[in-house]
Amino acid sequence: MNELELIRRLTRDLPANHSVVVGPGDDCAVLEPGLDDRWLLFKTDAVVEGVHFTADTEPARIGHKALARCLSDIAAMGGRPDSAVVTVAAPPTCDPGRIEAIYGGMAATARRFEVAIVGGETTSTTGPLLLSVALIGSVQKTRCVRRAGAVSGDAVFVSGELGGSLAGRHLDFEPRIEEATWLVGHFRPHAMIDVSDGLATDLRHLLEASSVGAELLQEALPVSRAARQRAREGTGKPPVEAALTDGEDFELLFTVPGADAVPLLDGWKARFPELRLSCIGRITETPGLTLRDRRGTRPLDLHGYAHFTKPG
Amino acid sequence: MNELELIRRLTRDLPANHSVVVGPGDDCAVLEPGLDDRWLLFKTDAVVEGVHFTADTEPARIGHKALARCLSDIAAMGGRPDSAVVTVAAPPTCDPGRIEAIYGGMAATARRFEVAIVGGETTSTTGPLLLSVALIGSVQKTRCVRRAGAVSGDAVFVSGELGGSLAGRHLDFEPRIEEATWLVGHFRPHAMIDVSDGLATDLRHLLEASSVGAELLQEALPVSRAARQRAREGTGKPPVEAALTDGEDFELLFTVPGADAVPLLDGWKARFPELRLSCIGRITETPGLTLRDRRGTRPLDLHGYAHFTKPG
Repeated sequence: MNELELIRRLTRDLPANHSVVVGPGDDCAVLEPGLDDRWLLFKTDAVVEGVHFTADTEPARIGHKALARCLSDIAAMGGRPDSAVVTVAAPPTCDPGRIEAIYGGMAATARRFEVAIVGGETTSTTGPLLLSVALIGSVQKTRCVRRAGAVSGDAVFVSGELGGSLAGRHLDFEPRIEEATWLVGHFRPHAMIDVSDGLATDLRHLLEASSVGAELLQEALPVSRAARQRAREGTGKPPVEAALTDGEDFELLFTVPGADAVPLLDGWKARFPELRLSCIGRITETPGLTLRDRRGTRPLDLHGYAHFTKPG
Repeated sequence: MNELELIRRLTRDLPANHSVVVGPGDDCAVLEPGLDDRWLLFKTDAVVEGVHFTADTEPARIGHKALARCLSDIAAMGGRPDSAVVTVAAPPTCDPGRIEAIYGGMAATARRFEVAIVGGETTSTTGPLLLSVALIGSVQKTRCVRRAGAVSGDAVFVSGELGGSLAGRHLDFEPRIEEATWLVGHFRPHAMIDVSDGLATDLRHLLEASSVGAELLQEALPVSRAARQRAREGTGKPPVEAALTDGEDFELLFTVPGADAVPLLDGWKARFPELRLSCIGRITETPGLTLRDRRGTRPLDLHGYAHFTKPG
C-alpha cells in the first residue's frame, strides 16, 4: 500500500458534523462557526528532518517553512490566517538552543502575517526532529475558492516561477496571502490550489476536483532561474520538466473566466510589480492534462512527464 | 535544560494578535472569532509509541487516547469540541492496517462526541509512531473556566477516581465533556483543569495561576481500585501517593464557592449517579499545597510527596 492509497483509506469514512462546509481533500477544511459573513479555515501540516530539511538547515528557516506551508494553504482558499498551535517531537540529543531558534524563525514569520501562536506540545522521540503545525484562518464566504469549480474556457494562471526550489526557495518561499486576498477581492477565481507537489500534480488535483481537463502552453511556463541553472550544471531536471514536477514552489495556481485574463494581468502588474503572474493555459471540457509546444500537443503523465504522441 | 525550562523558553515571547483571549498556558487557547456569545477553543496534543502507548497496544485504543486527551482539555474549559485535524508520522515498517485501525478508534470516539475529522497529514519517520491531534471547540463566553480564578474559601472538587491509570484506564478514559457542560451550566466554577500529570502537579498549576494555596484532606482523596490493587501487588506506589501523582487520570479538577459545595454534590449525584464527585479540600489564602490527615497538616512537595513537618 503506498501513501496515497493509505490516505484514501484513512479519509474515506471520517466523521463529519453540521459545521463542516468542506471536509478533507481541499487545501484547508472549511467550517461554519455561526458568523454571517465568514467561514473558518483549518489546516495541519508537518515537516520532518531528512525529508523537508536537513541537520544542516539554518533553524530559523525550518521554523519559517513549518508555518509557511500552512499559510500557503490558507492563501489557496482565499483566506487569511489567524492562530497556530505547534507540536515539536525532538530526539533527546537535539540541542534545545536549536529548537528555540526554530521557534524564533516561526515566530518571526507568524508576526509578519499577524498570526498568533497560542499553544504547543513538546514530546521526545528517538526519531528525527518533527514539527507539526495546525492553523486556523478565516475567509469571506463569498470569496472562498476551492479546488473544484474550474470550467471549460477558464484561463489557468500561476504566480511566481516554478522549479528548482531545492536550491533554497523551499525554505524561504513567501506564502501568497496578500496576493490571494487581493485576487479574491477583485476577481472571481473559479478554482485554486497551492503548488506544493509540482505544477503537473497539483493542477491534476484541481482538474479532478472540477471534472475538467487542461491544455498548458510550454512556452508560457514560468521556469525559475534556479531550475535553469540546475539544469545547466547537471544537478537538476530539464527546465520545463523541473517547472512541471519539482514541487515545493508554494505558488498560487488558479483559473478565472477567459474574459478576465487581460484585466487580471493588468491589475496584478499594477499591484504586485515584483511578482510574475503567468497565464499558462486553458481549461478544456476533455479530461486530462496536455502540453502544447510548436510541434503539437502531447499528453502529460501522472508525474508530469510529456509523452510524444505516436504519429497517427 | 529540562522540558519545563524549554517550554518556558519557547512560550515566553510568542506572537499574539487581537483575537487571542487566552494564549498558551491554560488547558486550551481561547480565541474571539467575532461571535456574540461564544469563544473558540484551540488545542494540540501528541502521543508517541513508547511513551503514551506501546507496540502491543490495541490500535483502536491508541486512536481513542490521541483524540480523547484533547477532548479532556476542551472539557476543562467548560467547552464542547467541534473539529479535529490529525498528523500521523509512521516508520516505513509500520503496518498500514495498524494505522487504519488507529484511525478507526479515533473516528469512533469522534463520532460519539460529534467531532468532525476534517483533515490530516501522514509523513514518514525513522522514529516511533507519533500522532498529533489539533482540536477546535467552542465555549459560551459566560461559562468559560480558566485555571486562574480560584479564591480563598473555595471548595476543591475532583471527578472520578485517581491513580493506577497505567493498569489500563489511560487508554480508555472518558473525556468529561458532558459533566463539564452540565457543571458550567448549573454552577459557577471559579477555576478548572484536567488531571493529566497527576493531582498534585495539576492542582499546583491551578493554584499558581490563581495565586492561592490549597489544603487537601487525605481521607477525601478518591483513590482508584486500580491504585489500591497495584499497591497490594507491589507494582504501584502507596495508594494515596498514586492518587496524588500517577497522572493520566483525565478527570476534572475544579473549585466552586464553599456555599455551592453541597448543592453541587446533590445535583451531580442526581445527574451522574455512576460517576463519583469528591470534595477533596479547600482553597487557602496562603500559597502552597498541604495535605491534612489525623496526625496533622504536611506540605506536599512539587512531585506530590507528603513531607512530615519537623516538630516545632
